[in-house]
Amino acid sequence: MIFLLGASGYIGQAFKRHLQALRLPIHEISAQGLLTTGKETLRSNIREFRPDFLINAAGFTGKPNVDACELMKAETLTGNLVLPLLLAEVCAEEGIPWGHVSSGCIYQGQREIGVQGDDLGFREEDAPNFDFYHLPSSFYSGTKAMAEQLLAGFSSLYIWRLRVPFDESDGARNYLSKLMRYSRLLDVRNSLSHRGDFVEACWESYARHLPYGTYNLTNHGSVTTREVVGMIENEGRRRALGGDAFSAKMMCKHYDFFASETEFMQQAAKTPRSSCFLDTEKAKRAGLPLRDVRVALTEALQHWTWEAQK
Amino acid sequence: MIFLLGASGYIGQAFKRHLQALRLPIHEISAQGLLTTGKETLRSNIREFRPDFLINAAGFTGKPNVDACELMKAETLTGNLVLPLLLAEVCAEEGIPWGHVSSGCIYQGQREIGVQGDDLGFREEDAPNFDFYHLPSSFYSGTKAMAEQLLAGFSSLYIWRLRVPFDESDGARNYLSKLMRYSRLLDVRNSLSHRGDFVEACWESYARHLPYGTYNLTNHGSVTTREVVGMIENEGRRRALGGDAFSAKMMCKHYDFFASETEFMQQAAKTPRSSCFLDTEKAKRAGLPLRDVRVALTEALQHWTWEAQK
Repeated sequence: MIFLLGASGYIGQAFKRHLQALRLPIHEISAQGLLTTGKETLRSNIREFRPDFLINAAGFTGKPNVDACELMKAETLTGNLVLPLLLAEVCAEEGIPWGHVSSGCIYQGQREIGVQGDDLGFREEDAPNFDFYHLPSSFYSGTKAMAEQLLAGFSSLYIWRLRVPFDESDGARNYLSKLMRYSRLLDVRNSLSHRGDFVEACWESYARHLPYGTYNLTNHGSVTTREVVGMIENEGRRRALGGDAFSAKMMCKHYDFFASETEFMQQAAKTPRSSCFLDTEKAKRAGLPLRDVRVALTEALQHWTWEAQK
Repeated sequence: MIFLLGASGYIGQAFKRHLQALRLPIHEISAQGLLTTGKETLRSNIREFRPDFLINAAGFTGKPNVDACELMKAETLTGNLVLPLLLAEVCAEEGIPWGHVSSGCIYQGQREIGVQGDDLGFREEDAPNFDFYHLPSSFYSGTKAMAEQLLAGFSSLYIWRLRVPFDESDGARNYLSKLMRYSRLLDVRNSLSHRGDFVEACWESYARHLPYGTYNLTNHGSVTTREVVGMIENEGRRRALGGDAFSAKMMCKHYDFFASETEFMQQAAKTPRSSCFLDTEKAKRAGLPLRDVRVALTEALQHWTWEAQK
């Protein structure tokens, strides 16, 4: 038994005839049955509801983490590359403005060291340096970067770059929850996005009619893993004094660190991680509501609620 | 009204809450409803039928030609990149060997000029030079090249490279039919694949248990557009002598050529075309049944049947 995809096409027809002449049993599989770009569904929804704006917060990030994307390339491509292109093509045809949640993970490291020795983050217009063109990178980052590259050919759209989301609600996708639950940590410097700040900044870019284009929407500044752990420990000690033994135990646990990124790659990860620092001057100048990263972290920890308590 | 994709995700949840707090009407669109990778469908088909082999002759080439791929990037990505990855991932899980119809259009030009001044074609192991990493190329070629690159991570699969298919049956996808019907032609040197030879060679690679991997499956040698036109005219004159006025008129029409590739790009094409010459020594050494390109062209023309007559 031979499975044949594309049996009605120019080459598929010839395969079918050849296999039939050899009297081999064929089972035709419809490629369209396996894959649909759903353009018609989106078009009919748009024509029915005439939305003012469309938000794409869908994507394929991998569970439990980005390593899963290496083993599920079909889904990663579909969610992060085909979906945005589908939205771009249909929204352009129908004249619908839209926003796309992208990621700062298309960069690695920092742009350059400033004259005063301070970090300078990657700007919106900087070409990615952690993508299919710069290996080793991760397949996830490659698809996110390629989507940005292809979306650059379209107008009437915002590209909102998120990095390492967190907020005050304990949960599997929250960076602070991850730090408290991972058995070992990698000390790297990163830009982070408070989830609420991010979403509000996205929305305000549309509500305030900011020019379409790319916006780095992380909180201002950058922090190292050790700094964030220090902030968690401080909050744990504060709660201990208030008699909150559960928080004290969870927040003041022993934090173990990998000796190096090499050790992390050897022992814990299948694919490299992006750690990077984004420049947020464009968002700041536009007046988008993003707090300093240390303020946002401190407030998230002060208002921290455990998942079990919610 | 705001359309929201990914409403159940970590960021989508926050968008939903934010928009609800602003009392804005939301309509949730399911990303999964727009896109499916159909892995489950393929898996259940494989488990039901246990195929010995799977052939992927499906892909998205654009109609009427590759220019259409520039405007339908979602479909091009889906057909040429997501589909092969989906097949690779499911076939690897299920232990099914398979073959993928790829394309020589991931190259442009020739590999190098040999010591005797003869052309040397691109070999199977040569990196593409007409892809996303080498712009300007075509989006179609980019997806085909990227699929090959990603499939290189899988075993138990044949990558069969086709170039410019033709045979003795007049039709919209047949290179000879195109030459006779296009209003102006571009004179370039190409490898070509006789459709029947190609399919037989693909099948034989599996039937003879050749090592898995990439095979250039074009007919041996290369030809210029003007050479092929000359062969069509010869056949037209032969048919004229035999009293076949229709063939004479169709084959001995006035053939007009673009002055240069620049003129072709300015007047007729939206995206660059690949014209290239592939090395077929690997297929020849393996004994795959591919004729010399001039023999295959001459015989196709001798047995030529018009679409209307079929």
